[in-house]
Amino acid sequence: MITDFTNPERKKWSEITKRPELDLKKIKPLVKKIFKDVNKNGDKSLYKYTKEFDKIDIKSIKTKRKDLLKSENKVSEKLKLAIKSAKKNIEKFHEAQKVVFKKIETEEGVECWQEKKAIEKVGLYIPGGTAPLFSTILMLAIPAKIAGCKEIIICTPPDKNGYIPNEILFTAKLCGVSKIYCIGGAQAIAAMTFGTESIPKVYKIFGPGNQYVTMAKQYSLNFNVSIDMPAGPSELLVVGDSSSNASFIASDLLSQAEHGIDSQVILVSTSKDLIKSVKNEILIQVKLLTRKNIVEKSLKNAKFIYFKSKKDASDFINEYAPEHYIISIENEDYFTSNIMNAGSVFIGKYSPESAGDYASGTNHTLPTNGYSKQYSGVNVDSFTKTITFQKISKSGLSNLSETIQLMAQAENLEGHKKAVSIRFK
Amino acid sequence: MITDFTNPERKKWSEITKRPELDLKKIKPLVKKIFKDVNKNGDKSLYKYTKEFDKIDIKSIKTKRKDLLKSENKVSEKLKLAIKSAKKNIEKFHEAQKVVFKKIETEEGVECWQEKKAIEKVGLYIPGGTAPLFSTILMLAIPAKIAGCKEIIICTPPDKNGYIPNEILFTAKLCGVSKIYCIGGAQAIAAMTFGTESIPKVYKIFGPGNQYVTMAKQYSLNFNVSIDMPAGPSELLVVGDSSSNASFIASDLLSQAEHGIDSQVILVSTSKDLIKSVKNEILIQVKLLTRKNIVEKSLKNAKFIYFKSKKDASDFINEYAPEHYIISIENEDYFTSNIMNAGSVFIGKYSPESAGDYASGTNHTLPTNGYSKQYSGVNVDSFTKTITFQKISKSGLSNLSETIQLMAQAENLEGHKKAVSIRFK
Repeated sequence: MITDFTNPERKKWSEITKRPELDLKKIKPLVKKIFKDVNKNGDKSLYKYTKEFDKIDIKSIKTKRKDLLKSENKVSEKLKLAIKSAKKNIEKFHEAQKVVFKKIETEEGVECWQEKKAIEKVGLYIPGGTAPLFSTILMLAIPAKIAGCKEIIICTPPDKNGYIPNEILFTAKLCGVSKIYCIGGAQAIAAMTFGTESIPKVYKIFGPGNQYVTMAKQYSLNFNVSIDMPAGPSELLVVGDSSSNASFIASDLLSQAEHGIDSQVILVSTSKDLIKSVKNEILIQVKLLTRKNIVEKSLKNAKFIYFKSKKDASDFINEYAPEHYIISIENEDYFTSNIMNAGSVFIGKYSPESAGDYASGTNHTLPTNGYSKQYSGVNVDSFTKTITFQKISKSGLSNLSETIQLMAQAENLEGHKKAVSIRFK
Repeated sequence: MITDFTNPERKKWSEITKRPELDLKKIKPLVKKIFKDVNKNGDKSLYKYTKEFDKIDIKSIKTKRKDLLKSENKVSEKLKLAIKSAKKNIEKFHEAQKVVFKKIETEEGVECWQEKKAIEKVGLYIPGGTAPLFSTILMLAIPAKIAGCKEIIICTPPDKNGYIPNEILFTAKLCGVSKIYCIGGAQAIAAMTFGTESIPKVYKIFGPGNQYVTMAKQYSLNFNVSIDMPAGPSELLVVGDSSSNASFIASDLLSQAEHGIDSQVILVSTSKDLIKSVKNEILIQVKLLTRKNIVEKSLKNAKFIYFKSKKDASDFINEYAPEHYIISIENEDYFTSNIMNAGSVFIGKYSPESAGDYASGTNHTLPTNGYSKQYSGVNVDSFTKTITFQKISKSGLSNLSETIQLMAQAENLEGHKKAVSIRFK
C-alpha cells in the first residue's frame, strides 16, 4: 500500500512531493449559494442548512451562559486537569512570542516605530465530526487572548443531539471565550463573514475544517475577511537512519495517518533497513488501532523514500515542505540546521507529533500542502497586525526635504513634491 | 466635487467608509486565459501579450548585465544621492525589525522555540505607467534582502521604447537585485506563478499594480503562491481641528489624489472652519498641479466629515481603517493612542505622507480598502515565515505523557495516544 522510491532524481521531486489532490472546484457553487443565502437571510438560513446537511434541529445558535457554566461539572476531573496542564504550556510558549519594538531615529528629527495591534474581531472555527476537537480551542483562543483581540467568537457544529459537546464548552470557558455559536460547515464561515442576527461579523477567520469549510474560508476572502492560511489534509514527514527506532517511527506515522483518509505520511531514510523495519512495524501496529479502516486508506498516500546522500535527503525535505517534521536520526543537527521549510519540527526520538498536537506548548495549526514555504503556523502574530508610525520635526523634514523632492520629481508626482515644499515657504 | 457630512450617525458609517468600487470580476476571464497560456507556452506568450496589450516589441525579457551596469551612468548624480539617502533610512528602520526568539522550557525537558526563516524565492512587481516607480524597489527589495531571501526577482513593464527605465535598473542594482525581467501586467504575475524559460517560479509575489495585476495576484493564490496583501486604490485620511494648517493639509490631500482617479482622500475635522479653509486651499493649489486632470476626477471620491466629538471622530477613523493617516491636530496624543486600524501613521504637521512614501524609513506598501483591520503593511516579516521547534527528552515526554494520552483519548485519536505509550513500554 506504501509507494517506495530509491534515490529519486531531482527532476522527479516535484511529482513525488505532490499531495493527494483535493478537488474543491466541484463544491464552489454550493458554497457560493450558501454565502448568498446567509448574507440575505441570516439566522434563518443557518437553521435551514444545519437541518439540510447535518440532519439536526439546533435548539439555539447562541450558547446560553448556564450551559457554559454547567459544562464544568460534565467533564471528568482527570481530563480537566490535562486540559489545564496543556493550557499552561501553550500559554507559556505563546506569551514569549510577544515583541516590543523600539523607536528608531532614522535621521535627526525623524522618529519611526512599529506597534503591533490586536485584530479586533476574530472568529475561530472548531470542527466536530467523530469527536469534539477541544485541543484546537487551546491552539486558537490562547494566542488570540494573548494578542489582546477584543471580540473572540467560536463557531462549532452540534453533536448528533443538537448540542455542543461539554469538552468544547469547558475549554472555551477556560480560555475566556464566552461567545460560542452552535453552527458548523460553510454556513458558519458565511455567518462570521457577513454577521447575522446572532453571530457577529469578524475580520479574520481561523481554524481547520472539512472541504466545505476550507472552500468557504477561501471564498470569504472576497468579502474583506482574511483567514489564517489555506488549508489541506494533514501530513507528517519523518527522517531516520539505521540508528532510529522503527517502532516509534511507525507509531508516529500511524498517529498522523489516523486523521483522515487524505492524510499523508512520508518516511525519508538514509537506511534501507529502516524502511523495511518501519513497514513491518506498521503491519503489526495498525491491527491494534480502532481507526484501522481510515489508516489503511490513508496509507495509500504514504511514500517511503531512500536517499543515499543526506544532502539529497535534506534538500528533498525542503522541497516537500512538511507540515509536521520529525527528525529522528543520529546526525540530528545536520537536518535541524538545514531545514528551510516546515510547519513544526520535532527533534529526537522522544518528540512525537502527539506532543505538539496537545501539550508541548507549540501550536498545532500549521501550513499543509507545501505552504510552509511561505506561511507560518498560527502564532500570536496571526492575531495582530503591525502599524508603522512616524513623527517628524520641522528640522527633521528639512533633512529629508531634498531627497523627497528629487525622488517625487523623478516619479512624476509633483503633488508629492509640493506637499514638502509648501511647508518651507 | 467633495462630499460633506456633519456628525453622521454611526449606523451610516459603513456606507460612508465604503471605497470607490473596483469591479474586477469583468477582467477575471482574461486573467484566467493569460494564466493558462503562460503556463503552457511560457516566454512565447509573454512576448505575445506585451505586443497585444502594451503595443511593444520587447527586445529581451531578461536584463543583460551590461545594461544593468550602464544604468549607473544614466541617472543624474543628484537623484542617485537622493535614492541612496532614502535607502539608508529604509534600511535602518527595517533592520531594526529583526527579532530573535528565545528557547522556552515549557516543562522540564520540553524545549520549544521559534525561528524566522526567509521565504526562499520572492517576486517583486514594480509598476511602470506614467513614470518609473523606482521607490517601490527600495520598499520591497530592502526588506527582502534583510530577511535573507535567496532568490529575489523583479518584473517591471517596458517603457514605450521597449526598455526598462534606467532609474529602475539603477535602484535594483543598488539594492543587490540582479534578476530583472522586462515584463508587466497579468502576464508577469502568471510568469512568476508558474515559471517560464526566462523567469523563475517564486513562492510569494509582492507589489502594487493596475487592476489586471491586482486580479492576477488574487488569482495566483490558486496555484500555491502567496501574495503580500489584497490591493486597492491608494487612500489618505487626515484628522484636523482649528489648530491645523489648512494649506499643509490641502497639499497632503492633493498629493494623495494625484495617484489615480480612483484614489480617495478623507478629511475628518472637529472644526467646521478647517473644512472650509481646506476646500479653499484645494481650489487654489489644484490649479498649479501638472496632474490636475487626475486630481479633479479623484476628488469626486473625497469626503470631508465634521464631528463635534473627538471620540466619534476617532471611532470613525478606526472604522474607515485608512492606508495613510495623518494626525495634524492639537490633541495628537488622543488620536495616536486610540488608533487601532491604519497602515502608516504620520504625526504632526511636519509629517507629510510624502515623507513616508520616499524617505523617512517606513514602508509605503500598505493595506488599502479597510484591510488595515487585519493586514500589516510590508515589513521584514512579510519576507519570512516562522517555524516552531520542540526537543523533548525522555523525562520531558514522561512529564507530558498523561496529559497527551488523556486528551488524545477524549478526541478519539487512539494512534496519537499510542505514539506516546509505545515509548514507555
